[in-house]
Amino acid sequence: MSDIFLAVDWGTTNRRAFLIENGAVVSTERDATGILAVPPGGFAAEIAALRVRYGAVPMILAGMVGSNRGWIDAGYVGCPAGLEALAAAAKTPIHGVHVIPGVSRIDDHRADVMRGEEVQLLGAVASGMAPHDALLCQPGTHCKWATMQDGAITDFVTAMTGELFALLKGHALIGSAMAGEVANDTVFAQGVADAADDDLLARLFGVRPASLLGLRNDPDAASYVSGLLIGSDCRARLRHGGRDVFLLADPVLGGLYATAISANGGTAMLVDSHAAFVAGIVRLWELMR
Amino acid sequence: MSDIFLAVDWGTTNRRAFLIENGAVVSTERDATGILAVPPGGFAAEIAALRVRYGAVPMILAGMVGSNRGWIDAGYVGCPAGLEALAAAAKTPIHGVHVIPGVSRIDDHRADVMRGEEVQLLGAVASGMAPHDALLCQPGTHCKWATMQDGAITDFVTAMTGELFALLKGHALIGSAMAGEVANDTVFAQGVADAADDDLLARLFGVRPASLLGLRNDPDAASYVSGLLIGSDCRARLRHGGRDVFLLADPVLGGLYATAISANGGTAMLVDSHAAFVAGIVRLWELMR
Repeated sequence: MSDIFLAVDWGTTNRRAFLIENGAVVSTERDATGILAVPPGGFAAEIAALRVRYGAVPMILAGMVGSNRGWIDAGYVGCPAGLEALAAAAKTPIHGVHVIPGVSRIDDHRADVMRGEEVQLLGAVASGMAPHDALLCQPGTHCKWATMQDGAITDFVTAMTGELFALLKGHALIGSAMAGEVANDTVFAQGVADAADDDLLARLFGVRPASLLGLRNDPDAASYVSGLLIGSDCRARLRHGGRDVFLLADPVLGGLYATAISANGGTAMLVDSHAAFVAGIVRLWELMR
Repeated sequence: MSDIFLAVDWGTTNRRAFLIENGAVVSTERDATGILAVPPGGFAAEIAALRVRYGAVPMILAGMVGSNRGWIDAGYVGCPAGLEALAAAAKTPIHGVHVIPGVSRIDDHRADVMRGEEVQLLGAVASGMAPHDALLCQPGTHCKWATMQDGAITDFVTAMTGELFALLKGHALIGSAMAGEVANDTVFAQGVADAADDDLLARLFGVRPASLLGLRNDPDAASYVSGLLIGSDCRARLRHGGRDVFLLADPVLGGLYATAISANGGTAMLVDSHAAFVAGIVRLWELMR
């Protein structure tokens, strides 16, 4: 008898479903039915629609669907958090449907949360794509950096790197100069280098005088600002010594982070984030079925 | 015969006029006729309207009116920049009307510009409200920090502290928690303290988990973010040793900066920014008449 289930990575604006049989992905599809696209009370109908498409197979849902803005608040598992703890804390709002909790870390110094990224992170180490003791990074709107020990998430920090780039481009005085594409070039590298004085507020303003005084071509400003922000992010994480960083990213964003990691004394290795998600969710299913 | 002239501090969104007779302000008024409110080609008509109100007295205009978005581009005087250099470089678009240039600093490491702030800065030291060798700070949307030597501006740096606060409040994911008033309280001080790890991107994101986990009252988030930003600004400026800082600010914003300056080993002294502007413009008039 085959072992089949549906895994859904259900985020804020997107949703990706993987039909998985005997540990291998049979089919996958992505759509824009993130949790914000589901009307209040509408999740049961969404589940019914998935069952029409995929049959009455068990489902494991991860991501913002388990937040207080999603279907059911699946809470958080505190660090250190491994796959066993996530499986044990999963919520079952209706028969055959399991919602994975997020992960939190709290001490007197700092609090942080993640929801959805934990499956990728733990899958990467469970499958051997990254070592059981490693620093992992998931760049994006809210960039996650996770310290893994013995295969569990023991600590992590989130930086609003991507969100701040979008805010500056869309709404700041310097935004009008940021219309160009970001490239992994010498201008980006200069932004990374300028992040080394830990003075982001002044360096960001500096985009405007550089434009007014004709010291930089305006189309390069987006690359420079991206370099400043990604450089600041990597610098803060590698301040106490460069090390290997396993990047769960597409090649473009991964390439930008690799440049900044290298400039800060580290070494970047790219990991396939979709494969890591599948590996993580398959391990969770093995623990929960 | 009395010595009378009209000084206009003409910014992007506001304009303030001072009628000055024998070195003393006779009358002053402020309106919303910043340069953005003047239609293309409309400055001559605005000058004519001022002459109807104040008589055919000489005028000195400072601020964004002298930018490439204003009436006439009055250019920049390079550092070191004193009142004599500004007076000598003033432009005279029509008889009896003088437009003060801005100040720039450029080297291989960094470029910066100011326009309008230079009159206050030089007036503060020319009048003795601040020493001839001092660090001056003008908080605001774009916070200026100027190093004065022998009464001239020898270097300066601009931080987008106020603009970033407004961007975050208006458009960031953490903005919804920032609706409260900023207060010079223990939450603000915690933000200043948390700026000490030079990790603004992660500290800003941290507002959200603190809210999700119930670790901070949402109405306090605005004070915390303000503390992070003003703390980062002051830390970058005082990184190599605390010192006296002369603040050209209103008491509320000046109080916030004084807290952050003190936390970074400096000592803040408040200077009346309107009095500094008048002192600077009177000295310029003495040099130009």
